[in-house]
Amino acid sequence: MRLFNALTLRSVLLRGIDLILINTLRYSLMSMSVPSEWLKVYDQLNKFFYPESVAIVGASSTPGKIGYEIFKNSIAEFKGRVYPVNPRAKEVLGFKAYPTVLDIPGKVDLAVIAIPAKVVPRVVEECGLKGVRNIVIISGGFKEVGGEGVKLEEEIVEIARRHGIRIIGPNCIGVFNSSNMFETFFQPRDRMIRSKEGKIAIVTQSGTIGAAFLEWAAMDGVGVSKLISFGNKCDVNEVDLLKYLALDDETKVIAFYLESLEVGREFLEVARRVVLKKPIVAFKGGKTSKSSKAVTSHTGRLAGKIEVLRGAFKQCGVIEARELINLYDMAKALALQPPAEGNRVCMVTNGAGGCIIAIDVFSEHGVELAELSEDTRRKLEESLPQYAIISNPVDLTGSATTSDFKAALEVLFQASEVDLVMPFYVLQDAPLGLDIIEVTAAIAKKHAKPIVCCMPGGPIVQEKARKLTRLGVPTYQTPESAALAAYALIAYGENVKRVSKILELLEDRS
Amino acid sequence: MRLFNALTLRSVLLRGIDLILINTLRYSLMSMSVPSEWLKVYDQLNKFFYPESVAIVGASSTPGKIGYEIFKNSIAEFKGRVYPVNPRAKEVLGFKAYPTVLDIPGKVDLAVIAIPAKVVPRVVEECGLKGVRNIVIISGGFKEVGGEGVKLEEEIVEIARRHGIRIIGPNCIGVFNSSNMFETFFQPRDRMIRSKEGKIAIVTQSGTIGAAFLEWAAMDGVGVSKLISFGNKCDVNEVDLLKYLALDDETKVIAFYLESLEVGREFLEVARRVVLKKPIVAFKGGKTSKSSKAVTSHTGRLAGKIEVLRGAFKQCGVIEARELINLYDMAKALALQPPAEGNRVCMVTNGAGGCIIAIDVFSEHGVELAELSEDTRRKLEESLPQYAIISNPVDLTGSATTSDFKAALEVLFQASEVDLVMPFYVLQDAPLGLDIIEVTAAIAKKHAKPIVCCMPGGPIVQEKARKLTRLGVPTYQTPESAALAAYALIAYGENVKRVSKILELLEDRS
Repeated sequence: MRLFNALTLRSVLLRGIDLILINTLRYSLMSMSVPSEWLKVYDQLNKFFYPESVAIVGASSTPGKIGYEIFKNSIAEFKGRVYPVNPRAKEVLGFKAYPTVLDIPGKVDLAVIAIPAKVVPRVVEECGLKGVRNIVIISGGFKEVGGEGVKLEEEIVEIARRHGIRIIGPNCIGVFNSSNMFETFFQPRDRMIRSKEGKIAIVTQSGTIGAAFLEWAAMDGVGVSKLISFGNKCDVNEVDLLKYLALDDETKVIAFYLESLEVGREFLEVARRVVLKKPIVAFKGGKTSKSSKAVTSHTGRLAGKIEVLRGAFKQCGVIEARELINLYDMAKALALQPPAEGNRVCMVTNGAGGCIIAIDVFSEHGVELAELSEDTRRKLEESLPQYAIISNPVDLTGSATTSDFKAALEVLFQASEVDLVMPFYVLQDAPLGLDIIEVTAAIAKKHAKPIVCCMPGGPIVQEKARKLTRLGVPTYQTPESAALAAYALIAYGENVKRVSKILELLEDRS
Repeated sequence: MRLFNALTLRSVLLRGIDLILINTLRYSLMSMSVPSEWLKVYDQLNKFFYPESVAIVGASSTPGKIGYEIFKNSIAEFKGRVYPVNPRAKEVLGFKAYPTVLDIPGKVDLAVIAIPAKVVPRVVEECGLKGVRNIVIISGGFKEVGGEGVKLEEEIVEIARRHGIRIIGPNCIGVFNSSNMFETFFQPRDRMIRSKEGKIAIVTQSGTIGAAFLEWAAMDGVGVSKLISFGNKCDVNEVDLLKYLALDDETKVIAFYLESLEVGREFLEVARRVVLKKPIVAFKGGKTSKSSKAVTSHTGRLAGKIEVLRGAFKQCGVIEARELINLYDMAKALALQPPAEGNRVCMVTNGAGGCIIAIDVFSEHGVELAELSEDTRRKLEESLPQYAIISNPVDLTGSATTSDFKAALEVLFQASEVDLVMPFYVLQDAPLGLDIIEVTAAIAKKHAKPIVCCMPGGPIVQEKARKLTRLGVPTYQTPESAALAAYALIAYGENVKRVSKILELLEDRS
């Protein structure tokens, strides 16, 4: 529990309080068991997300060019200073352009580089001389292409180390921060929507996967707190980001898309401390020998063995997503709902087809169907009409109305043998009123018990599903997505208990 | 090949040609190896989908009631005669109501029953006396509730047999036919959209799953030819429907959501003949002991062992869907694209993250990555810019334009070592023009080789993905969905070859 308080305190302190004050407080924070090294990393990385002044190297006036799109996006909503750097331009989109970073008057917190690979080392050197300590390299043409690219990547890492610079990338889309709308993306706003807020941080080795995740989250109104696409991750890696995001108060859930994990042991050590504060979900791309080959030409990395990774995930309480979509599905549930106290689910429905599919998923994941007590059964019988089948799932049949569901949900939320409530709504069925959305959200809000909802269908149903999600009840299109989201809430509850025990044992030993 | 011709001939003949003529032709059709029993079933079931006159028993004037919604939907777009039957109403929605089916003047092809279970036997008897030979029973309260319900179901089956009546249901949402917009659904149009056309027939034990499938297909512009929800399937079962749909010219692909399959042997015999003409995909709900229990209270059936079913599917060439969404994903690919000649896929992309995930799925399903020949590599090198990585996937990187993709697709469609072409578009990336949609569709149309596309993203991307799908290129949100759709096209190609051999062997033996 000490760790929780220390982290919260730290996060509170970082909002607008002087760095000197923080430094004087550091000792007491350390004694409260936040490793001082985490604080150092936090300070090093913070300017990636909260820069006051940014240089866009390669900023261009030609629409369609990556340097144009990045510059345009970076000034779209972000309120900090942004400088275009381009030796062949006087101005870009009305902003005075500078030939090099060194020509910019005043301080530069962050440089974003989008120029051919072979000139990147020179720019990194200039950044070092200018005192820039954070660089995002969007450009590709490094380790992922082999040969000369490998050398170029080594060169920029060497220069960065010498100057104390931290690098995100190369070969990535960089960062996005929904709290100040700072971004380094080259995806135009009329192609890709952004989220205005959100509690999920997505860390991804693939920009493509990051873009899809961001849009899925934005469409649902769930959003992301931060997105970090780190491509070849020549410097900043998943362990650095774990430490940073653990201390980032905007982030409640951390989601990883990983193709390789070279720092397995360190990841494990850090992740199991983070898990006590926030859930981590991960999806691994490149699980087989064939896909591993593709990983190397994608991000210049060696894909680790999935069995080894799974073992590590289990030990440190990271929840693995089965399919890419489940990475988002699970993160969404963990962002909106509390973890479950146990593994007993009760479903309630007006069309049991989806429940049957969910049960199959539960069986694979150690999720149990709650055995309803005599008391619960009696209460359900008293409050429900004749046509209801009192079982698990509670089947209210196609005749179910909003008030039938309301009655059933009230009973199930109060049943001590049920750890998670799962309505499967067939919203297409006329007897069920559309007010079921507001009714469900209101009941869920009254109780501390988690809820996950399944509601498959077309445009009308999907709009209502998004509404229910926005009201705080994670709602899904398929039974598999819903069942795995429920599993994530159960797994996180179990992981916190298990990891706490492991940490206690380790502390006793030392 | 004889079977194909016979079936096509049969389908042609059934459009507007006299039944007598058909009967005289039956002998020659039989000799062309369409089993005569299939033709009998076809005739028996055809009025479920193409009735000229329909009685809705339980039709009501009270909005929200199931009998109201069914009647309202049945007259919405269907052009045949529809009679409301309700002893307590003079008229329903302006249509004269009849106390019983017997009071209706003239012929009734089909009765749709939505009244309490206990009065259903009497109505079935009346239908028999009236000469009705097709009945859809929407009502629940039969085998799925046990006890008295089991007896009621036996009773209606006995009455139906005595009169030569075929029954769909009970405990279902019945049928939908997009070619004449006839339907027995109680889902209002402002909740559930319908498809105006389509080539996929979906046969489902769960109405809920059927509704979701229909809406997914309608949203995509893919649509369904027919939907059959048969619930407890007291009479018409999956074998009957297989025979019917094999001969239905509107249907190109048959998709099954099954919870139980009691007629396994017969299904196998029929399915392997059907597979030669049209692909069959299936998803099984109730794979485990726990979900099997739920199946019994859902549709009053015993869920079969999944291992046994899988063996049968394999033998007869039915493609099993891994998740519910893949049932639709696969059916969509099979409806829009030809089967693949072999199992070698080549991917092309401007963001390889999704390809890596697809390769993992391919590895599990025996799909190979095409090894590009020297000739193909040379052609790609000649037509692509420097930044392209010539491998499989062909990675055009974030700088890719529409013309880069156009050049790559032209080469890959013509490469004999590639059996299926798979573009993974990051449409969010600005260098790629939105005209990639039309360009892709045009190239695909020129070639006989199948194509499957992956394009994940938010509202803008999803709209373009639906457009590409409507232009005939099946396009998906997730790499797993796309990879499994590609697998379905490969599996169908292989299945036809394998099943042909099995049938040849069987014919040689007899």
